[in-house]
Formats: sequence, C-alpha cells, structure tokens
Amino acid sequence: MAVVKGPQVFPRPEYLRRLAAVKVKMAERDIEAVVITESAHITYLTGSISPPDARGLIIFESREEPVFILRWLDVALTEQETFLDRDNILAYSEEFVGGPDTNGYDAVIDFLLDQGLSKASIGLELSDLTVASFEKFKTRLPQIRIVDFSHEVERIRSIKSDLEIAVMREAAAIADAAVLRALEIMRPGVKEADAIAEIVGALARGANGKIGTWLAEPFLCASSRIGSPHTHWSEDTLQQGSQINLEIAAVRHAYHAAICRTYSLGNPSDRLLRMHAAQLAGLEAGLSVIRSGVISDEVAGVIHRTTEKYGFKKRSRCGYGLGIGWWEQATSLKIGDSTVLQPNMTFHLHLGSWIEENFGCVISESIRVTESGVELLTKAPRELFVID
Amino acid sequence: MAVVKGPQVFPRPEYLRRLAAVKVKMAERDIEAVVITESAHITYLTGSISPPDARGLIIFESREEPVFILRWLDVALTEQETFLDRDNILAYSEEFVGGPDTNGYDAVIDFLLDQGLSKASIGLELSDLTVASFEKFKTRLPQIRIVDFSHEVERIRSIKSDLEIAVMREAAAIADAAVLRALEIMRPGVKEADAIAEIVGALARGANGKIGTWLAEPFLCASSRIGSPHTHWSEDTLQQGSQINLEIAAVRHAYHAAICRTYSLGNPSDRLLRMHAAQLAGLEAGLSVIRSGVISDEVAGVIHRTTEKYGFKKRSRCGYGLGIGWWEQATSLKIGDSTVLQPNMTFHLHLGSWIEENFGCVISESIRVTESGVELLTKAPRELFVID
Repeated sequence: MAVVKGPQVFPRPEYLRRLAAVKVKMAERDIEAVVITESAHITYLTGSISPPDARGLIIFESREEPVFILRWLDVALTEQETFLDRDNILAYSEEFVGGPDTNGYDAVIDFLLDQGLSKASIGLELSDLTVASFEKFKTRLPQIRIVDFSHEVERIRSIKSDLEIAVMREAAAIADAAVLRALEIMRPGVKEADAIAEIVGALARGANGKIGTWLAEPFLCASSRIGSPHTHWSEDTLQQGSQINLEIAAVRHAYHAAICRTYSLGNPSDRLLRMHAAQLAGLEAGLSVIRSGVISDEVAGVIHRTTEKYGFKKRSRCGYGLGIGWWEQATSLKIGDSTVLQPNMTFHLHLGSWIEENFGCVISESIRVTESGVELLTKAPRELFVID
Repeated sequence: MAVVKGPQVFPRPEYLRRLAAVKVKMAERDIEAVVITESAHITYLTGSISPPDARGLIIFESREEPVFILRWLDVALTEQETFLDRDNILAYSEEFVGGPDTNGYDAVIDFLLDQGLSKASIGLELSDLTVASFEKFKTRLPQIRIVDFSHEVERIRSIKSDLEIAVMREAAAIADAAVLRALEIMRPGVKEADAIAEIVGALARGANGKIGTWLAEPFLCASSRIGSPHTHWSEDTLQQGSQINLEIAAVRHAYHAAICRTYSLGNPSDRLLRMHAAQLAGLEAGLSVIRSGVISDEVAGVIHRTTEKYGFKKRSRCGYGLGIGWWEQATSLKIGDSTVLQPNMTFHLHLGSWIEENFGCVISESIRVTESGVELLTKAPRELFVID
C-alpha cells in the first residue's frame, strides 16, 4: 500500500527556486548532470532529512525535478518527506549494503549508465565524496568529464529565503527556552548528565507550540573542562563555584539556531567577570557594524579590536554560517575573509574564547543580516548567568 | 595553566595493545607511518571523543605513542581525555580553519614534511578521506608512496577486549532503561516530541549509577511513518491505535548498545501480531545458532528461513557490528557474508522489516559472541509492547 505525502516544510516553488539556482551554475560550467551527495545539500534541495546510507540526488539541467537514488527501505520515508514525485525516487536493492566494496554509489553509476550519460559532463561534490567512492565513478565511467561541483550548493544556500528565516526564528526560540531551562536546573549537587537530560528535553519539547524536530549535539563544558569548546558532559556533579559553558543548538526541520551562554554557580571569579565583559563588548561591537554590504573581515576586525581593548586576544574566528546543520562552510566571520554580507545571510556570531588550557568562556547569538543592520534570532538574556 | 588528565576510560596498556595490532598491519605492508583520520578509529586508539575539525593521528612503527595533530583549541580537552603524553598532542593554528582551501590536513602534511617523511611509505584511510583532502597529500607529498589503509582499524576493533565489553554492558543497561521509560510514557494524547524528550532524558541519566555520556540519534517511527526505519519523530500526537517503532542506542564513552522495540497503543492489528511473531522467532533462531566459529552467512540463513516459515521475507540484512558508533562496517550478518564469528565480536542483531510502504515493525538485541554461544547485552523484555 502506498504512503501519502506528509506535510511539507516548504512549498514546491521554494524547492524549484533552489534547483533553478543550481541549474544556473550547471549551465555556466557546461554540466549536463550533477550528483549531489552532501546530506545538507540533499536536504536543501528536496526536504529529505539525512537518509543514512550512500545515496545520490541527480539533477539534470533539462528536467524540472531531480532523481533521488537511495536504499529501498528509505523510499517510503522519502516520499513522505520530500516534494519529489514518486517516479523520481528510485530504490537500490540490499545487495549494495554492507559489503566492503559496493555501496549506493554503484547504483547511482548504474543509473547514469542507463541514462546514456557515459560520455557526458557530470558534476560531483569532491569535497564530500571519499577517495574510494570517487574511484568508482572514475573506473566505471572512464569517458565521462568530471567537474568538481564542491561548494556550489553551499554558496547558494548561504543566503536564506524568507521562508527559511521563518523556520530559523522558530528554532531560535527553542534554543532560548533551553538556555533558560538550564538556568532553572543547574545547581550545586546536580549531576551534569541530569542537567543535560533537562536541556535536551527542552530542545525536543520546543517553544511556542513548535517542537524541536531533531537534536543537535549539546555541549556542556563544566569546571574543570572549560579550556576547550565542544566538550561532552562528564560523570561529575556540579559544585558550588563551578563554571559551565553551554553550547547548544535547536533544530527545526534541519535548520539550526545556536546559542552559547556561560553560567557561574556562585560568585564568578574576577578573571571570568573581566573576560565575559570583554566578550560581551566584542559581541555588541560586532552587532553594531553588521549590515548588508559590509565585509566579513571588517566585522572580525571590529570585534578583535574591541576585545583587545579589554585586554583579551580572541584567537578563533568570530562566527560562521548557520542554517541546515550547525555550521555552513561557505561563510566565516574572520580576519582576511572577503565575503560581502548580504541580506538573509545567517551567522552564529560567536565570541567564545579559550585563553588558557584550563579557562575559557562563551557567549554567542544566532543572527540574520538585514539591509540596514542585523536581526537577532536568539533573544535569551545576553549576560553571564550567576546562580546563587 | 596546564590541565590535568581526567579519569581514563581504559588503562594505558589497553591503548598500547590496540596500537600494537595496528603496527603489525603496518609492518606486513611495509608502511613507516599511518595517518588515521576516521573519528571512530581515533577514539579507539587514543580515547579522544570526536574532535570536530580535520585532524590526524599519526602512528609510527618505531614509536610507542602516536602523534595527534588537531586544532589548538581542542588541545586541552584532548590532553584530559586521552592517554597521550602532552608532547604528542600538537596544535595547528587558526589559519587552517574556515578557509575554502586549507584545513587541518595541511598541518598534518607540514608535520610529515618536518619529520623528513617526504619519501616514505604512508598509510591513509582512503575510505574516509575526501577527494579534496586526498589531493593535498598527493600534491604536497609527490614522492611519497601512499598505501590504502582503509578498513584495517575497523577489522581490529571488531573484536572487543573484555574491558570494552564491560563498557558495552553498561551502555546496554541504559538502553534497556530507555525502552522501559518509553513504555511508561507513550500514551494516546502524548506528543511524539514529549515522548522523545523523556526517552533521551533516560539515555542521558543512565542506569545503575552509570550515566549516558553522549546521545545517539533516537528514531521514533510512529503511525503513519512506519514504512521506513531511521525516521525522526514528527509534530504529531500519539493516538489510540498508533504503532511506534522505537530504534535507540545508549552510549558510554563512545561505545553504543542499540535496541529496537515495537509498541502498540491499544490492540495490535492482526498484521502486526503475525509479523512480530515471525521476527521474534527469527531473532530467537539467530540467537540459537550464534557462537564462535559459525559463519555470518549461516546465521542469516537460519533467520531468513525462520521468518519465511511464518510467511515473511526479510529483505534487509540481519545485523551489523556494534561498538564505537552505532555500526561498524567490518562485519555484517547477511547472506553471502563469509565472516567467521569470533569471541567478543559484538552485533546489533536486527530483525526489523519494512514489508509495505506503510508498514514495518522492529525488534533487535545487542549481543556478544562467546565460545559456546551468545551473551545478550540488552535485556529488556523481548516482546511487542501493548499499551492499553
């Protein structure tokens, strides 16, 4: 019995617009078909949310819809999730799964051969394909001209539509709610794991009647593990005097909104107070200059000069593109980066700094670039949370 | 100020034993140094848990400890988490981050050049490296002999030590607890997102005083999305008559224990009862033949013949290796697979079947192969849970 399509996150014209932008790039580079393999790009172009096995989305310049080739047991879900017609979802059989030498890319190549594309120009995402998978394409399609299509979709998706922004606002409200839930529950004597249970619970339950549709990796870096970011919670119990650097993201339909806040159980140390004040000033200086037309390098420069006035040198970049996934590679707020900010670019503006091997603290916001300035997506109180 | 090492999951001799097994493979293939890039392999060989950016672990045949090259801000965490001496953790600077053309592999190559290895034989994991990253190695080390070291560490880690098994037992107890928590809270009128909040809460809080140290992707496939596995929860509310296929894994120190169970809110349909009975019989038939020395193909054959007696043809494989990460590629319980089962191999023995685009159900166990049979790691009641 067939399944029926579920509610779609975006209407069909939104996906066709995105595909049209890809086709412009294909025409510029004289490519007949592109095989998209990056999960985030497949999500962007179809609405499918990360099928697990090797698979390809094949975009033809001459056809409206792409063809999606995936493992047979992912077909029903893909029909429900995506805007694609059933006829454009093609299953490969179990033979391609779990062997050392074959995978779904063999099925993709079989399809290209069936289509008579053995002498065409084909775009592949070489920044995503492994060497082993790429060898399949070269070996089995020896006469094909392979064009590196890496980063093309990344650049397109770095500028969001208003529909995408609306989803990111929903995600940001959930991230805010989780920050406040952490403020309620983190106390001396609470196990870090129990705190995380409540925080991820908030990320799933959502806000304003909109649930979190997925969980991004939550990082809870508590004393004595505050010298690095991306730290897992530990088996420890929070103590009076503990500092917690919380780095989380909420997810709606694969769109992420990230936020970092620092918490102190009891009076913060002088070092923490001074560093957090520097970060806050840097963040606000960044917000004051971001607008359409400004160069990424300029934003980073303002931030660095501000924190240095406070006596702290931030060593890491000041932010990165945000959207489908916790970071997008196409954009980076950093010294030397010549990206020109455009309306509806979205960033995780991140002032986190780790200045000693045993000390750092964090503060960040998810933001949208506008014509005249910046929209804050995250709105939780922008402060060092002191829990007495 | 320097950090101090945290408690180690495994003692130093355990890591040296694992490294020695890698060095045997290196010697057999006449390789002077191997660059390990696969996250799970780095975890296996050092205790580091998934640093986020491009990085490499370089194993020399002639040195006891490997050298780990990673982003400067991950150093403190890596010193705390791993057994490595501080001198063997080398930082690369921020210049390698966030650019389109440079990444941490450039720092790895710089190191290889510094070591005078430009004409050596180097092993790379080509099944993990992207084409773009591999090109760096080829271009910047033109005289080096590159040997494909893919799958070597996978094969070594497919057989666990008793220390690893002990950790997996702890993870399995957490998975069991989450299955039972789901049984308590899934009721008509409960939002799927609220159910997931409780289930992941249980996966974090842990069992028997042992927390879950990380969260694996939890899949909650509820009517009408039970025709595919790996389905995210939706915005829906559970209904009287809903079926839920729950696929979860608990994590201790990167080691996963997975379990699947099917729940019915109210009386199950005849179709569900018949299919679940077939799966249960297949699972138990598989358990009855698994022991050291048996071939993977034989196990799969017994399972398939059993479910077919019940009138159901299972199309997907019957299981896969389990350990660091939800699945290991080295082993697969499937027809045609010639793997000889050995003591302390661990599997997710998975009878899930999706026989119609709108119907499937699941049951599985995490298991360990023993000399004489099988140890069940997961112990939750092995039944179709009917919630009245």
